[in-house]
Amino acid sequence: MRYGAYSEEVLKKLHWMNDVLGTSLADALAVSNGIDMRALIAEALHMGDEGHNRNKAGSLIYLKLLAPLIAKTTKDSAAMAEVMQFIGDNALSVLNPVMAACKAMTDAAHGVEGSTIVTTMARNGTDFGIRVSGLGEKQWFTAPAEIPVGLFFSGFSQADANPDIGDSAITETAGIGGFAMATAPAIVTFVGGTPKDAMNATLEMYEITFTESKFFTMPSLDFRGTPTGIDLRKVVELGITPRINTGIAHKNAGVGQVGAGLVRPPLKLFEDALLAFAEKYNI
Amino acid sequence: MRYGAYSEEVLKKLHWMNDVLGTSLADALAVSNGIDMRALIAEALHMGDEGHNRNKAGSLIYLKLLAPLIAKTTKDSAAMAEVMQFIGDNALSVLNPVMAACKAMTDAAHGVEGSTIVTTMARNGTDFGIRVSGLGEKQWFTAPAEIPVGLFFSGFSQADANPDIGDSAITETAGIGGFAMATAPAIVTFVGGTPKDAMNATLEMYEITFTESKFFTMPSLDFRGTPTGIDLRKVVELGITPRINTGIAHKNAGVGQVGAGLVRPPLKLFEDALLAFAEKYNI
Repeated sequence: MRYGAYSEEVLKKLHWMNDVLGTSLADALAVSNGIDMRALIAEALHMGDEGHNRNKAGSLIYLKLLAPLIAKTTKDSAAMAEVMQFIGDNALSVLNPVMAACKAMTDAAHGVEGSTIVTTMARNGTDFGIRVSGLGEKQWFTAPAEIPVGLFFSGFSQADANPDIGDSAITETAGIGGFAMATAPAIVTFVGGTPKDAMNATLEMYEITFTESKFFTMPSLDFRGTPTGIDLRKVVELGITPRINTGIAHKNAGVGQVGAGLVRPPLKLFEDALLAFAEKYNI
Repeated sequence: MRYGAYSEEVLKKLHWMNDVLGTSLADALAVSNGIDMRALIAEALHMGDEGHNRNKAGSLIYLKLLAPLIAKTTKDSAAMAEVMQFIGDNALSVLNPVMAACKAMTDAAHGVEGSTIVTTMARNGTDFGIRVSGLGEKQWFTAPAEIPVGLFFSGFSQADANPDIGDSAITETAGIGGFAMATAPAIVTFVGGTPKDAMNATLEMYEITFTESKFFTMPSLDFRGTPTGIDLRKVVELGITPRINTGIAHKNAGVGQVGAGLVRPPLKLFEDALLAFAEKYNI
């Protein structure tokens, strides 16, 4: 296997992340006033990121906010240089904090009585699952995950792709990622398609969302807010499912990411959820 | 005067730049393999910069390239933190290197026998001057500079604006800045107008340029190259002068920048140059 699970290289990097990167970030964040992730995402969306697969600008803003703190708190200058190089060179270094921020935003919308807004979308490589605000904490709707279609890293192809996997669709659930592609035309070099397709992806998502973000705006659409709050009723009525802009994992465990592309959840999830909603609320 | 020339604050900052920032940058660059400015500009144009008034992404890429080097070479951690904070917080920190890169590019096009390409545009707050590739090293064409129209920092207005000043129009001469506004729709928050105006600025510049850049492309225009090489003949034939996207200085010396906006050179410069060209080449 070309890139094996638990290879020496992978283990070495994980240990470095644990021992050096983790310590350095923890020390830097301890002397910070926190990172305003909503402001970071908003600025990155004005710099050609959509916040899911393209986080080049966001990762550099993250470096900008952290670098002076790391300079003050990490004592070993070689370690400091490595940490800064890693955060700066990894165009997805801010993705995990972005996902956590999106999770906090969508959790705030969860549990609203009578709400048909989708507050969770997640995939585990086998099934795709959603939760709905007005349907409680524990009620998941699941169906087999689709296989994303996209562009592949050198040496890999569509035949290597695993069904949709990962927690990162929380970005689309919060109104960025695939929903904000209009502001990130350069992403097509990574996920395929044309800048016009990226624009159309966002325009389509306005059809199935409840509102437009006050905080996340897109200059190329005259600073219109991103389509936010997937509404179950609109999805089912129009038969338009959310667009997710995602990494593609190899179908063999341990190989890791082999590409990036686009995928949608099965429509059945939303149909099932709407039926459950009608039942719960006696509609 | 609100912001005086030679105020304590200004002097303190200049001394810091000389003693701390300058030393730190020099030490970092000494252990680098150089900064590939063309690659930096190309990437920044995919991140919503146009490279003249909007250099947010370019300045962060600059920080990303320098931070690990500064970590290795600047020994005082407080100074290191200050330098990183300054480079990261100043959204124009890379503008001077960008200008130097554009100067190197346009100088390479200067002195080509029979060429009608404009290779220098510069302003000194009184006059606007241009040089033309085929008209030699020393022949400048000058006329009174226009006053830029734009948006002003808090407390200042159009009435404070000085006639066009500075060397930064070398960016437009090299095919970025005002010529690449289509890729930087968010710049309208800084210079005024709408994203559509920004798009139109670039489209208009294709009318008066000789070619499209192979290196600087714009995702929003399907990765079309920026309009490059202002052609004297086209400017005069169409009566369309170059668009410059520039900082605006206060008319009283020492106050400094008070806004940003748009300006064009007087058409007379190009008419005079074309006459001189016809005379030199007996056309």
